Amino acid sequence: MTFRHVAIIGLGLQGGSIGLAVREFLPGVVTTGHDISPEYRVRAAERGLVGKVCETAVEAVRGADLVIFCVPPGVMGEAAAAVRDAMPADALVSDVGSSKQAIAKALGEALPDHLVIPAHPVAGTENSGPDAGFAHLFRNRWCIVTPPEQTDLLRLSALVEFWEALGANVEIMTPEHHDLVLAVTSHLPHLIAYTIVGTASDLEDVTQGEVIKYSAGGFRDFTRIAASDPTMWRDVFLSNKEAVLTMLQRFTEDLTALQRAIRVGDGDTLFEHFARTRAIRRSIIEEGQDDSRPDFGRADHEGGQG
Amino acid sequence: MTFRHVAIIGLGLQGGSIGLAVREFLPGVVTTGHDISPEYRVRAAERGLVGKVCETAVEAVRGADLVIFCVPPGVMGEAAAAVRDAMPADALVSDVGSSKQAIAKALGEALPDHLVIPAHPVAGTENSGPDAGFAHLFRNRWCIVTPPEQTDLLRLSALVEFWEALGANVEIMTPEHHDLVLAVTSHLPHLIAYTIVGTASDLEDVTQGEVIKYSAGGFRDFTRIAASDPTMWRDVFLSNKEAVLTMLQRFTEDLTALQRAIRVGDGDTLFEHFARTRAIRRSIIEEGQDDSRPDFGRADHEGGQG
Repeated sequence: MTFRHVAIIGLGLQGGSIGLAVREFLPGVVTTGHDISPEYRVRAAERGLVGKVCETAVEAVRGADLVIFCVPPGVMGEAAAAVRDAMPADALVSDVGSSKQAIAKALGEALPDHLVIPAHPVAGTENSGPDAGFAHLFRNRWCIVTPPEQTDLLRLSALVEFWEALGANVEIMTPEHHDLVLAVTSHLPHLIAYTIVGTASDLEDVTQGEVIKYSAGGFRDFTRIAASDPTMWRDVFLSNKEAVLTMLQRFTEDLTALQRAIRVGDGDTLFEHFARTRAIRRSIIEEGQDDSRPDFGRADHEGGQG
Repeated sequence: MTFRHVAIIGLGLQGGSIGLAVREFLPGVVTTGHDISPEYRVRAAERGLVGKVCETAVEAVRGADLVIFCVPPGVMGEAAAAVRDAMPADALVSDVGSSKQAIAKALGEALPDHLVIPAHPVAGTENSGPDAGFAHLFRNRWCIVTPPEQTDLLRLSALVEFWEALGANVEIMTPEHHDLVLAVTSHLPHLIAYTIVGTASDLEDVTQGEVIKYSAGGFRDFTRIAASDPTMWRDVFLSNKEAVLTMLQRFTEDLTALQRAIRVGDGDTLFEHFARTRAIRRSIIEEGQDDSRPDFGRADHEGGQG
């Protein structure tokens, strides 16, 4: 079983990238899409993110056999309820949200008669909106699929194959475990980055101009993820509250321990901690999950002739 | 006044890059260098980081009119004391360390009869050692020079011109202010990154394999700076203790406020905070201090055909 018509609700970074990827890698598949913003719809049509940009979500889902909601976690339920009556009864429903328990619940309640198999491609950039997407976003990234306990295996494998066709590797996981894993690999890093960028902007004795000027000392790395879409991230934290607070508690304990080591001048504790974190970076590069070039390859680009 | 012979003590990322940059941009200048590690010396000679790699530091500084110490902050005083008697009386002494008050004090005590003008090029990568350096490291980066209150202006401007020749923009600052600025733009980000990478490695309910696999959700960004040289960073935190602890206190307050907003479900506070941090990223890119390509340009590289 494969999909013939994919409808995409929400044409930002994720929705737009799915549309472009389907058009490139599954050229026979019909793509329709809708975004609630008129400006986004115009731009989506100009870029050809989907075969047809529809004026309403209802129109976009008509006749679709796969409907993917690519809207912020907080409005998933609302977006799904709005198209319930227009969706074919056998359409498979999925999404791309960064928290899975809350979204599975919202989609399930909004669409009680449809099969919902949530998914989360762990891929993105700091950009958002209809100009941000590109067809290769999912290439060699992981897409986590969190099917309900009893699910139609044929349709599950169709969804898996769909993501593989877009270039992703697929992993099946419970929504609970997904939310814990992503709390540490994605949500906590974003929260920390948003915090430190805020802290640096609010100082009295160091100006914002100085923070910007000397950001190459490390700070600039954090500003990238702190430039991510605020609406989406607000919703992520509110929808994965428990796991985020748990991870944050661990982080705060560890930070307090290092703070104490600095205060008492315990160089050995600092050195041991700093030495063991290197290994993780090596593994991430070996597994193809980051660029091996120093400084993310910035020097190749900024340095020009290098 | 310009320098005729630059001696570099310590041939890692910074020392090696200075050597290569001098050889490329100031080709008439003699360069000598020494590293305490025999393996580093062999590799430095193979790569031609300086014109002559010397077996001893004493030999390297002989006849030099600029001696730059590129060793970890904690051993600056020791490294300087070891060459005191061999250094020409009129040699200018400088360094590249990331904290300035402590290093100015250590170098001043070790070399009471020499003029010491500390400096700090705010440039680097996560790599260290004699293979890490490259001639363009300082290009369009800032180098902060922290002269003592009464200093020889002719020799100060010679040092400024030296860094400008290597591609850097130079800023003059007091060591106190430097230490405060760098605490926020460099030291705190490194501490946070080291902490979160440690936290993620120590979880029981999420495996290290999962952390690596799904690191593209944001975590991988932090692993880059947490792969930096542990010896150097231990020394940075110990030598800029007060400013780091002050900034850390601010950060912790801000993090606690966001944590509370998540706990009570205060979406407005989260949204406002996340929306204002975007502007800083924009300024950093506009001022040429980071790569404007999304995801640091990783997609261009990893995505291949893009």
